[in-house]
Amino acid sequence: MSILVVGSVAFDSISTPHGTVDRCLGGAATHFALAASFFTQVRVIGVVGEDFTSEQEAVFQARGIDIQGIERTAGKCFHWTGEYLENLNEAHTLRTDLNVFERFQPKIPEAYRDSEFLFLANIDPVLQQQVRKQMPKVRMVCGDTMNYWITGHRENLLGVLQGLDALLINDGEAKLLAGETNLVQAAKRIMEMGPKTLIVKQGEYGATAFFGDNSFSMHVKNRFFHAPALPLAEVVDPTGAGDSFAGGFFGYLASQPQVTPSVFKRAMFYGGVMGSFAVERFGTERIRQLTREEIDQRFAAFRELSHLDAE
Amino acid sequence: MSILVVGSVAFDSISTPHGTVDRCLGGAATHFALAASFFTQVRVIGVVGEDFTSEQEAVFQARGIDIQGIERTAGKCFHWTGEYLENLNEAHTLRTDLNVFERFQPKIPEAYRDSEFLFLANIDPVLQQQVRKQMPKVRMVCGDTMNYWITGHRENLLGVLQGLDALLINDGEAKLLAGETNLVQAAKRIMEMGPKTLIVKQGEYGATAFFGDNSFSMHVKNRFFHAPALPLAEVVDPTGAGDSFAGGFFGYLASQPQVTPSVFKRAMFYGGVMGSFAVERFGTERIRQLTREEIDQRFAAFRELSHLDAE
Repeated sequence: MSILVVGSVAFDSISTPHGTVDRCLGGAATHFALAASFFTQVRVIGVVGEDFTSEQEAVFQARGIDIQGIERTAGKCFHWTGEYLENLNEAHTLRTDLNVFERFQPKIPEAYRDSEFLFLANIDPVLQQQVRKQMPKVRMVCGDTMNYWITGHRENLLGVLQGLDALLINDGEAKLLAGETNLVQAAKRIMEMGPKTLIVKQGEYGATAFFGDNSFSMHVKNRFFHAPALPLAEVVDPTGAGDSFAGGFFGYLASQPQVTPSVFKRAMFYGGVMGSFAVERFGTERIRQLTREEIDQRFAAFRELSHLDAE
Repeated sequence: MSILVVGSVAFDSISTPHGTVDRCLGGAATHFALAASFFTQVRVIGVVGEDFTSEQEAVFQARGIDIQGIERTAGKCFHWTGEYLENLNEAHTLRTDLNVFERFQPKIPEAYRDSEFLFLANIDPVLQQQVRKQMPKVRMVCGDTMNYWITGHRENLLGVLQGLDALLINDGEAKLLAGETNLVQAAKRIMEMGPKTLIVKQGEYGATAFFGDNSFSMHVKNRFFHAPALPLAEVVDPTGAGDSFAGGFFGYLASQPQVTPSVFKRAMFYGGVMGSFAVERFGTERIRQLTREEIDQRFAAFRELSHLDAE
């Protein structure tokens, strides 16, 4: 089944303890789409400027991603400049140039209308809402957001949350959104805001899903599920890890005939797998070179990581 | 099989966002012994003052713990005063009164000499070494330490590390000991210092074991294993969680006929189970009231938490 993703397609200039790259292809929709493309058909809604050339196009095309929904306009692509210091869990934004993103009005091509899965990547909740409303019959909607929208655009964000099957955010964002320091309490409060399920991305500690009363995985024991993270000897660039997690998670879900608890749990593990590959090189470099065989091997390693044999 | 533990038996005065307790029974050896006592016979080596009365004795006796190795001496028990602020992962020491611990010279009663498992809780590495040398034929030795010994008593600590089957420390301590910011690199370096296995306690994120070339669990795939932590809606007092983890881990190991990879993994989960109970109330309160049935139930919940069904 097809996934429609709306979000940023951008250039990133990144500095980490492992080096520096200037204007590499990035953006939440890019990372999400590349990761999800290993599992299902992906369609992208976004906007780019004249600096988006056949070189960037080829990255999507090589993975069979449909980019007819990426609007070309005068000006330059969204450009993020950031750095990571010793603590690779924390990105420091040095500069954000919205450029063509400033006047972005998402339009959905006719050929995208039958998409059954919708991912609202981290952008202005007003735009997330616009896309959501144009896709009333979608089977499942997941979304992401960040501190900037949580603190400064809360009302708009609350409107988006109401329509979500699952919200995927990180630990700090969940606590900020809920105004709680305990994650279980925060999850409870957030699910009262709308999302049936909350998935908390915890970086090097994996990800935890919390299931609400109307969750599509409500029959999971415990009301939560944890996908561990593989200890990595080297993290080159964390940029896009969360979006790659979301792509692996949602891509696998969309590839399955039904969203059962068992499928949901596997999707969480595939999310972890894609996130763990993303950080091995700068930008999209590692995921672009990835094979399905490598994904399956790492999935097996993730599974073994916390697996107890039957008694 | 019996475990011999050497470490502090103390009073703690603790303040957390959930309240304050004054002079409750604590100390690493106490928390360890109580947790391990649910799995196997435990013997304690330590020192106490005149303020250790029948009331404290009764706590050990109720769990069948052998305390003939706890020396009674003039003066007062070791007393730790500390607080936890919003971030419950971090203890702030307000005051440490060593008292009778200052002149402690561990002596091992004859009846303890046949103990097959030895746990060196977090005390001066000189004392850890003294006990280790008096128990040359022990089958397995695990130990703990902390920043204070890592930075200020490194040479002595390195002597202890050489003889350890497993070192159990937290994330920050592992990175400090190794001088590495990446945990996988830190683990590699620490195992070069002696311990066959490193278990990194990660608080609310569970615990990860790293296996070296001579590890008793070297046949585990991946060379590491992760035991998740159950998301808890309320953490009342984190004091003793790490020692309770160690007690559950080592207690289960000692209760089994052989230390196989499968037994080792289960032991990690039992460690997590005991740590998760410890934080539910102040001091030793929760573990004292615990039943084996509750332990088994929570073990099942831990197992379910990250478990993928067979395809």
